[in-house]
Amino acid sequence: MVAAAILPELATQVVIPVAAAVGIAFSVLQWVIVSKVRLSPERRGEGGAGKSGPSDYLIEEEEGLNDHSIVAKCAEIQNAISEGATSFLFTEYKYVGLFMSIFAVLIFLFLGSVEGFSTKSQPCHYSKDKTCKPALANAIFSTIAFVLGAVTSLVSGFLGMKIATYANARTTLEARKGVGKAFITAFRAGAVMGFLLAASGLLVLYIAINLFGIYYGDDWEGLFEAITGYGLGGSSMALFGRVGGGIYTKAADVGADLVGKVERNIPEDDPRNPAVIADNVGDNVGDIAGMGSDLFGSYAESSCAALVVASISSFGINHEFTPMVYPLLVSSVGIIACLITTLFATDFFEIKAVSEIEPALKKQLIISTAVMTVGIALVSWLGLPYTFTIFNFGAQKTVQSWQLFLCVAVGLWAGLIIGFVTEYYTSNAYSPVQDVADSCRTGAATNVIFGLALGYKSVIIPIFAIAFSIFLSFSLAAMYGVAVAALGMLSTIATGLAIDAYGPISDNAGGIAEMAGMSHRIRERTDALDAAGNTTAAIGKGFAIGSAALVSLALFGAFVSRAAISTVDVLTPKVFIGLIVGAMLPYWFSAMTMKSVGSAALKMVEEVRRQFNTIPGLMEGTTKPDYATCVKISTDASIKEMIPPGALVMLTPLIVGIFFGVETLSGVLAGALVSGVQIAISASNTGGAWDNAKKYIEVPISTTTSSRFLFFWLQFPFTRPLFIAVLRLELQTMPGPLVPKVLTPTRRPSLVTPLEILSRTLQAPL
Amino acid sequence: MVAAAILPELATQVVIPVAAAVGIAFSVLQWVIVSKVRLSPERRGEGGAGKSGPSDYLIEEEEGLNDHSIVAKCAEIQNAISEGATSFLFTEYKYVGLFMSIFAVLIFLFLGSVEGFSTKSQPCHYSKDKTCKPALANAIFSTIAFVLGAVTSLVSGFLGMKIATYANARTTLEARKGVGKAFITAFRAGAVMGFLLAASGLLVLYIAINLFGIYYGDDWEGLFEAITGYGLGGSSMALFGRVGGGIYTKAADVGADLVGKVERNIPEDDPRNPAVIADNVGDNVGDIAGMGSDLFGSYAESSCAALVVASISSFGINHEFTPMVYPLLVSSVGIIACLITTLFATDFFEIKAVSEIEPALKKQLIISTAVMTVGIALVSWLGLPYTFTIFNFGAQKTVQSWQLFLCVAVGLWAGLIIGFVTEYYTSNAYSPVQDVADSCRTGAATNVIFGLALGYKSVIIPIFAIAFSIFLSFSLAAMYGVAVAALGMLSTIATGLAIDAYGPISDNAGGIAEMAGMSHRIRERTDALDAAGNTTAAIGKGFAIGSAALVSLALFGAFVSRAAISTVDVLTPKVFIGLIVGAMLPYWFSAMTMKSVGSAALKMVEEVRRQFNTIPGLMEGTTKPDYATCVKISTDASIKEMIPPGALVMLTPLIVGIFFGVETLSGVLAGALVSGVQIAISASNTGGAWDNAKKYIEVPISTTTSSRFLFFWLQFPFTRPLFIAVLRLELQTMPGPLVPKVLTPTRRPSLVTPLEILSRTLQAPL
Repeated sequence: MVAAAILPELATQVVIPVAAAVGIAFSVLQWVIVSKVRLSPERRGEGGAGKSGPSDYLIEEEEGLNDHSIVAKCAEIQNAISEGATSFLFTEYKYVGLFMSIFAVLIFLFLGSVEGFSTKSQPCHYSKDKTCKPALANAIFSTIAFVLGAVTSLVSGFLGMKIATYANARTTLEARKGVGKAFITAFRAGAVMGFLLAASGLLVLYIAINLFGIYYGDDWEGLFEAITGYGLGGSSMALFGRVGGGIYTKAADVGADLVGKVERNIPEDDPRNPAVIADNVGDNVGDIAGMGSDLFGSYAESSCAALVVASISSFGINHEFTPMVYPLLVSSVGIIACLITTLFATDFFEIKAVSEIEPALKKQLIISTAVMTVGIALVSWLGLPYTFTIFNFGAQKTVQSWQLFLCVAVGLWAGLIIGFVTEYYTSNAYSPVQDVADSCRTGAATNVIFGLALGYKSVIIPIFAIAFSIFLSFSLAAMYGVAVAALGMLSTIATGLAIDAYGPISDNAGGIAEMAGMSHRIRERTDALDAAGNTTAAIGKGFAIGSAALVSLALFGAFVSRAAISTVDVLTPKVFIGLIVGAMLPYWFSAMTMKSVGSAALKMVEEVRRQFNTIPGLMEGTTKPDYATCVKISTDASIKEMIPPGALVMLTPLIVGIFFGVETLSGVLAGALVSGVQIAISASNTGGAWDNAKKYIEVPISTTTSSRFLFFWLQFPFTRPLFIAVLRLELQTMPGPLVPKVLTPTRRPSLVTPLEILSRTLQAPL
Repeated sequence: MVAAAILPELATQVVIPVAAAVGIAFSVLQWVIVSKVRLSPERRGEGGAGKSGPSDYLIEEEEGLNDHSIVAKCAEIQNAISEGATSFLFTEYKYVGLFMSIFAVLIFLFLGSVEGFSTKSQPCHYSKDKTCKPALANAIFSTIAFVLGAVTSLVSGFLGMKIATYANARTTLEARKGVGKAFITAFRAGAVMGFLLAASGLLVLYIAINLFGIYYGDDWEGLFEAITGYGLGGSSMALFGRVGGGIYTKAADVGADLVGKVERNIPEDDPRNPAVIADNVGDNVGDIAGMGSDLFGSYAESSCAALVVASISSFGINHEFTPMVYPLLVSSVGIIACLITTLFATDFFEIKAVSEIEPALKKQLIISTAVMTVGIALVSWLGLPYTFTIFNFGAQKTVQSWQLFLCVAVGLWAGLIIGFVTEYYTSNAYSPVQDVADSCRTGAATNVIFGLALGYKSVIIPIFAIAFSIFLSFSLAAMYGVAVAALGMLSTIATGLAIDAYGPISDNAGGIAEMAGMSHRIRERTDALDAAGNTTAAIGKGFAIGSAALVSLALFGAFVSRAAISTVDVLTPKVFIGLIVGAMLPYWFSAMTMKSVGSAALKMVEEVRRQFNTIPGLMEGTTKPDYATCVKISTDASIKEMIPPGALVMLTPLIVGIFFGVETLSGVLAGALVSGVQIAISASNTGGAWDNAKKYIEVPISTTTSSRFLFFWLQFPFTRPLFIAVLRLELQTMPGPLVPKVLTPTRRPSLVTPLEILSRTLQAPL
């Protein structure tokens, strides 16, 4: 045999939990720092509104700094937003929880029933000479893993929302002291979310592997198959979190602006607008909680996909623990790399002017990618034997450690390239957005068309980057290579999420400043924060889409392996019709969600109009609007409307698999994947470009507002086209020798453009 | 051996040319009838403006009937449109001709050089024991066929444009006598185009087969390979005709309306608008000549694809002439079926009221489909042996004649289903369009979003219909089945084209009525004609897209056979990256053409604004605008801008094939096909829905005009994504034993949404 990995098992067993613990500790530290900004005016403001504060009040600007009433007002608004978001998430989780419970039972029944809930050990699926654990055990542990994944996703999203609604008003208050302070507050809050999610995702997975391992012992094949439930749980939550939260936020936002900005000509986030609280709640439930769940889903799926392939490769067969958990090691190093990167934003440099914000955020991505490249090299050197074999559609393929390094690194760097291309097409510093802005001269129509053309064009380079990553990683290490390439793209998830979450927090901060009636200068600062977040968020979205494409392919490959399909031949009618129908599914899904948002927004518009028309003194600011009704409309609509798209995603594989067989299903998955990624990228960039074009020129509101709304819909609904939670189940429904257990959950080619943030940000100051 | 076909060779040799001759004669007859409407007022109006006409002047309304000056004005406008269109087409053909000549030389050189311009006979590619004609002969005859295809396409498009610009003013004049008379005039003119194209396409192909046959003798394999040049020539012309004409018409239309309707608030087609002539010219060069070329391309390609597969099946091997030319027999019967169908519109029934127009056009499609089903059954019974074998990726598959009947019929009926679904989604009689109209209440943005969602949703059923057709025909008769299914969809091309061409003619008629200053009542009638054309045109578009998808698949299969690839396995990195990049290509292509139209329209807008601002008395109608400059802008822009998209389509296969090999290329073709068809259907229906939503409600102009323009772009540019003229060449560049000759041209999955017509029609009366 070849030499083992340099890193001994014991060291591995220490490194992973320590890295996760460090991530969580860092997250808590950031939270503590954010909490130092006081939101209780009574304590500090006891001396009245005068300059009676302690010495650290020596700041550049003091306008309204100790204004008792403003702080109180901020606290009150924050409270309203936080309550709205919490109540929505509880409602959502109630419904999703019900669904997930049913689904968990189904998983248990399907997996268990395959061998008649047998409690007898059986020969392994891949290593026929070994003995594996009974089917019943696999069913139980898969179900537990599924629940763990769902709960981790849920908790991460919820805590992210909590910190975001905790930090938004604090960012507003810090903006009085200067743009640098406000930036750091928002960024730290984003980092709380990022590190918490990355570290807890890793930790729970690690613990699960070790606990399950106590029972499974030598049966790694069974162990890691059960672990795939974790990824499945994460993606299932992601589906609902994303769709539900997405519909909520778009409906509220569009409803608020269509009446407020367009009809009534009042500023965005004006407290007179009845939908303004719902709008701000939407940022937190859609762009924070929903996005968190989504990225967690991709992350968990790519880890599980890599692990399950590794378990039937030489690592698993020879029981080499360190290389077996190589994916977890990559994530561990990722947390440390991101931690170092974060210090560059929060401690090593200080933001002094508005113009420094965007470069600071961009630097985060470059630094994290560079540091992480070294980290991957280190992990690949220490954690892998020099030569090993990887399972490749029934055969074993020999791979060397440096080749696997290349797989992870190509994913990481492809993500960065995609990100920068996205920035080029969505930032108003470059000609594409300027052209779109220019086209506004001839009205909304040309504007929209130029925007759509831009989105289509922006697909070209990212697709080449994704194709190159796939080609390289696929050629070097088969589906394992693709899975770790996805993991590479997601390895800097903590930084990516910090930047992504920073956007909605800044957006909220701006909203609170407006609602609290703070001065124009403060609002200008929060707008600047927001604008920067818009541009960099586009970059984060590039990562998300690219990694989703890779993850989907890896899961697709795992599905195909497990279904014992050795070729998916386009030249057979079964596969070809699958391909063409699959390519249609993202359109169907998009049509559903777009229509949902549209209908919900129409209802919201009518309610807002009704309030403006029937509540006397509302426009004059003497009466308060009925915020709660608007919150309720968004909540009801999103809960109701998330079901049909969710059902489409979940049922498609089941129906296709049962009625048309696995070959057609393979075609459907491949078609949905290649079609969905295009729509996702083009829609997200079209939206980003429109939003920034608006920033670039101060065109009349009617034109820009139009395109902004288009943008919401366009980037939102696209392409969580399928999957495939249910693929697991589907496999079970097939007769024959393939059925016993389940190799992989296979996931929707998500692509879900967790890009949403972009939409929130970058509001023309009006 | 099994029994031969019932129809003897001699009968077949009579039936085909006779059917074609009947089609041409019918076409000429319609032309003669249209020409009876006099456009020379001197003849009839000699007696002055009074009611001095002969007895057939007893018509329902006489307003302005013999008004000398109005007739003269109509003639003058018609003349200007005709001159503009002719001059554009000549310019276009000059450039395209240059390109086609170079391309023809390349084809000759590539095909000839493979065997070093050998003049020696060689063993056949598929029947190794037979002797085939030398490579040089194949190169010469392929090149001749290519030129024939291009010239036939060019002549058909040109003559179509001629009759359209001949009939438009006549339709206007007939509208004075009543809506029925006007309808028949426009419809007859459309029929001239439809029958001329269908019949001449068939006749030229038939003659070419017979003439080439004199040289080729027994070598049918070589004969029908050379004949594929005909399809290639047709598609190459189609690519340029469609792109060039499309850019022309969109630029002119948008330019005219954005300034005229939106800024100056003057009616559409108002003679004061400097771009009005360019706009009307556009209808004729884009929607008549361009669309004609496009459908001819699909028709020629599907015939050639079927023929070439047949030549290496039992028909070709056993030299059974009648079943060999089964595709031509289907087309022959199609002409007769369409002829009968046309009589229902022109002779059997008479239109008396506006509300009867749309049902009359719809009836055309139903009748032609029903009659044609009988026709196909007849041809399949008479023209095919009961059992025969079909070449299927290297093997021979046994097929029965009724199975082949099913293949053709499923294509025919799938087309009708697609058509009716399209109608459901684009006619304002149903809820989808009404919802879109309703969404206008909240502005252009919601309108646009609902429109996009509608387009996405409308993809679902057509894709299932196409998938079902593919599955059935593929399963029954492999790629031959797919090719004849495409032919089935196109077998009623004469009726489809008549209806399609009817639209722009009516649109022009309305424009002429407006420009000639005719009364509101006349204009109302032409608008009604136009509106009906809009709805039924959507149906015709359904046929076009569906058949293009089938044709592309058939050509794809032919390419794959010829490249000796037996599987296109998605599970190999080479194919998968081809798939994902291929799915991106329609987006790239669309981005290019959308941008082109946008830029050209901006130029047009600026010119129109300049004229309004600098020419004194223009708005008052006392001075004439400078029409010629606007015509020139559209001409120059479209000639210049058609090159990059054309190059993308032509070079992609060449580059991919040379640098990445045939497997990646197969992936690219499959990806482009499945992705392109979605974009084509959704874009075309979104556009149609917007246009009809506008009709349905009289919303303020800014909103509706916006969506209308979107529609132009959205339906126009999409998805003549690839192909693949150059596939032929590509194959030649590969080394090894596969290289010798060329089996098939393989064509772009055109889908080109020859739907354009929709755009022209249905103008809100304002």
